[in-house]
Amino acid sequence: MNKKELSLEDIMGMEQRYRAAFINSLGGFKSVALIGTRNAEGQTNLAIFNSLFHLGANPPLFGFVVRPDSVERHTLANILATGQYTVNHIRPDFYRQAHQTSARYAGSTSEFEAVGLTAQYKAGWQAPFVAESEVQIAAELVRRVDIAENGAIILIGKIQFVSIPTQCLQPDGYIDLECAGTVACSGLDSYHTTARLARLTYAKPDTEPSDISMTYGG
Amino acid sequence: MNKKELSLEDIMGMEQRYRAAFINSLGGFKSVALIGTRNAEGQTNLAIFNSLFHLGANPPLFGFVVRPDSVERHTLANILATGQYTVNHIRPDFYRQAHQTSARYAGSTSEFEAVGLTAQYKAGWQAPFVAESEVQIAAELVRRVDIAENGAIILIGKIQFVSIPTQCLQPDGYIDLECAGTVACSGLDSYHTTARLARLTYAKPDTEPSDISMTYGG
Repeated sequence: MNKKELSLEDIMGMEQRYRAAFINSLGGFKSVALIGTRNAEGQTNLAIFNSLFHLGANPPLFGFVVRPDSVERHTLANILATGQYTVNHIRPDFYRQAHQTSARYAGSTSEFEAVGLTAQYKAGWQAPFVAESEVQIAAELVRRVDIAENGAIILIGKIQFVSIPTQCLQPDGYIDLECAGTVACSGLDSYHTTARLARLTYAKPDTEPSDISMTYGG
Repeated sequence: MNKKELSLEDIMGMEQRYRAAFINSLGGFKSVALIGTRNAEGQTNLAIFNSLFHLGANPPLFGFVVRPDSVERHTLANILATGQYTVNHIRPDFYRQAHQTSARYAGSTSEFEAVGLTAQYKAGWQAPFVAESEVQIAAELVRRVDIAENGAIILIGKIQFVSIPTQCLQPDGYIDLECAGTVACSGLDSYHTTARLARLTYAKPDTEPSDISMTYGG
């Protein structure tokens, strides 16, 4: 394919929203999930995030990025106040409602009601889960990392509880997210389903990786 | 679907590799890319990473996670020594070679040669690009963040140069990664192509989002 090459100067010369769309696309396909929180008065909040990343399995840690000046500020405030949040995967039948949570609703409005998703409480957790999600995670704030370069904040959380579809769990611990109907995103606003090319065996220098077969019916 | 619910205690009781597969799956679909580096003696290195995340567009920043005790240690050492790296998207025709870069090759072995990918130099950059990649990024190390909880390191980079297929760039700055053939991953070892559900317009409280149409031929 013919290529377009751009320098940092070209990028910094872009119109602001154009640059946001461009740079957000560059990282490749991303996870996208709904983060549920509640403030000290019990008011629920739900917001969509596409910056989740794995940090470690022992203990189970992940991070995500918030911007204090964005519509995500209620999520940030609630997590800092309560230490609790939930992460809920998005399915094709409600990705439009999930996207709609990014609208700038007033603090007194619950995005659950505004977009038509259902708050669910369980596992002794104060923060609300999304009942429509097939993969639900409860997390506790471990640490915030402030990024001096642009004011972004990385919130690091420890997984406390997980609910997944039994039939999607493979014998080696892998969760088949296509089985669960989880969608991916790209850029700021594009939502995607996926099709597996293969799972590949652990790579070793002297052998080519082979396919791992999938097993269902758990 | 029937659900399996697990507590933190259940997760910590898992066998180590089972837990790694399980927790790596939970974050949803992820970006996956090859990071190219070179050491002070000019020896090239290429490694696959699935923890890239967007940090900001102004300036253009992203992060990714390395474990100092893993096979990624050459990448870490080279970036800390030279400050330079490249990020290269993976296509279906070479995802198996990309996966194979995660094998524990000796420091004197270039993964480019070992797996059969082509090092490319341009834009005055010392770190090698992957010639087979349709989306290539040059980045400069801005900062490292050490995660005390598990010894992981977040490397934050600033984008210095980008090469993308001209025809995939949309009028608003969004890069159509399906057009570019970029693959996604899940867990530790599963690779996926994608199919777009829709791009959705910027969400506002009083209106439902509508689809953004795609334009090609640039």
